[in-house]
Amino acid sequence: MTRTILSSASKEVIIGFDQPFVMIGERINPTGRKILAKEMKEGNFSRVEKDVLAQIAAGAQMLDVNAGIPLADEPKILADTIQLVQSITNVPLSIDSSIVAALEAGLSVYQGRALVNSVTGEEDRLEQVLPLVKKYGAAVVAISNDETGISEDPDVRYEVAKKIVERAQDYGIKPEDVVVDPLVMPVGAINDAGRQVMKLISRLRYELKVNTTCGASNFSFGIPNRNGMNASFISMAMSAGMTSAIVNPLHAEVVQSVRAADVVMGNDPDCGRWIKVYREPVAEAEGEQGGRRRSRRRRRA
Amino acid sequence: MTRTILSSASKEVIIGFDQPFVMIGERINPTGRKILAKEMKEGNFSRVEKDVLAQIAAGAQMLDVNAGIPLADEPKILADTIQLVQSITNVPLSIDSSIVAALEAGLSVYQGRALVNSVTGEEDRLEQVLPLVKKYGAAVVAISNDETGISEDPDVRYEVAKKIVERAQDYGIKPEDVVVDPLVMPVGAINDAGRQVMKLISRLRYELKVNTTCGASNFSFGIPNRNGMNASFISMAMSAGMTSAIVNPLHAEVVQSVRAADVVMGNDPDCGRWIKVYREPVAEAEGEQGGRRRSRRRRRA
Repeated sequence: MTRTILSSASKEVIIGFDQPFVMIGERINPTGRKILAKEMKEGNFSRVEKDVLAQIAAGAQMLDVNAGIPLADEPKILADTIQLVQSITNVPLSIDSSIVAALEAGLSVYQGRALVNSVTGEEDRLEQVLPLVKKYGAAVVAISNDETGISEDPDVRYEVAKKIVERAQDYGIKPEDVVVDPLVMPVGAINDAGRQVMKLISRLRYELKVNTTCGASNFSFGIPNRNGMNASFISMAMSAGMTSAIVNPLHAEVVQSVRAADVVMGNDPDCGRWIKVYREPVAEAEGEQGGRRRSRRRRRA
Repeated sequence: MTRTILSSASKEVIIGFDQPFVMIGERINPTGRKILAKEMKEGNFSRVEKDVLAQIAAGAQMLDVNAGIPLADEPKILADTIQLVQSITNVPLSIDSSIVAALEAGLSVYQGRALVNSVTGEEDRLEQVLPLVKKYGAAVVAISNDETGISEDPDVRYEVAKKIVERAQDYGIKPEDVVVDPLVMPVGAINDAGRQVMKLISRLRYELKVNTTCGASNFSFGIPNRNGMNASFISMAMSAGMTSAIVNPLHAEVVQSVRAADVVMGNDPDCGRWIKVYREPVAEAEGEQGGRRRSRRRRRA
């Protein structure tokens, strides 16, 4: 039973086949958010703080932290952001950058066991990122593309994922610490994207036996009612074997869909969480908005 | 590629692996609806008429018709209801009764190729219902229980389904004309109900290669936010291979989930239907409420 264990200084989260699905909040990311980018560059983290608390209140069990701001000192900003985030929450983090020096800066200040986001199957990335992952005892997201790009053939993407898992083992990283991103393509552009990715997720789980994650909302890029589509997509991906995803937890439809699919998959014993969140309008409102009140109630229960 | 073809005098609907999911509207059923029961018993079909039109406008491709009223002349009422329904719509019908004489009365007046709902694996039911299905050239819903009751073991339920398909063949009914109901159990009572039924649906599709249908809402019996749960459940069942379901199409969340899952499964080419229904608030309102306007628009497209 594959389990990827992530932690902060005081809290552990397990991504695993027999675990509730892990939602990794995607909001702390200046890409496409001009005001946030400007503030983070200036060392103003008030918006980051709000995003941290809102995402956790909405149900995120981990947070992704990205500081990709053009012409900025990304390693320093990423490290500063991580320290700030860890000072206000104990949920484990995913350290997200395409710059190796930024990943290292983030890892060097991180308290606990982080998820490094990400490595691809490209030779230079493997050689630079995997040693870092090993050095800091972290886990890593493996994206199933390589020098030849992103194949539309799920079997080719499977082989890339397999190669990364094998290369990670050469560096002393266990397969259970590689969380594969099968790459969700937009169905508006590729009509077969859904079936492709479901097949790949299923092979990754039952053949390669690894945990998986994805940017689920990419599926609905360019089509209307994206939350409605994302909600069904994520339930179906969970049915195929997906164990985590990078999502916007402020989208209530998507969060509800994850909770429901946990019930269907048998990962919400006696529907306990579902009933707590949805048993009455008041409880539902708390579940979506009032993280602190909810945890008080849980302690009493 | 398994296809079950149902029809009215002028319209064909195909339940099939490569087809959009077929929603069979469940509303024309007096069980638990006292006013409807009273009216149907008196020969007053105004409420039935409204239910027919509302369900079709909401997206149902077929309608289930049940006239199970205690101490009433069910065969006559079922036959009358079917004639009334066929006089106002051309969607194919599922003729729903536990009384064989009522099934026969319904079949004798039905125009087209009906879906008989249902036969179980019980010996006396097989012997009574299957000859009728053959005589009228209909298709049949096969419920996977027998004299021993409903097994919690999906493999036992699979064997019951297989037995019914074989017995149907003995009567000259093709496997593609047997639509298996795997029996959805309430997850509130059986924590493993979701995994059980997903496994069974998948075996029915990929091993027995038959179409499937179910009373999807039974899954959420006894727990809160039933529509939210049903929406995810039905997407996941479609992912596992389910090809139709008896649902309340007036529940917009469930219908949206079916449409989204059709996109994911590649059964909505170029997301055509999804985009038409959801591209703007006006289009969405039409999709949910205005069947006639929508079909005009479709003809123009």
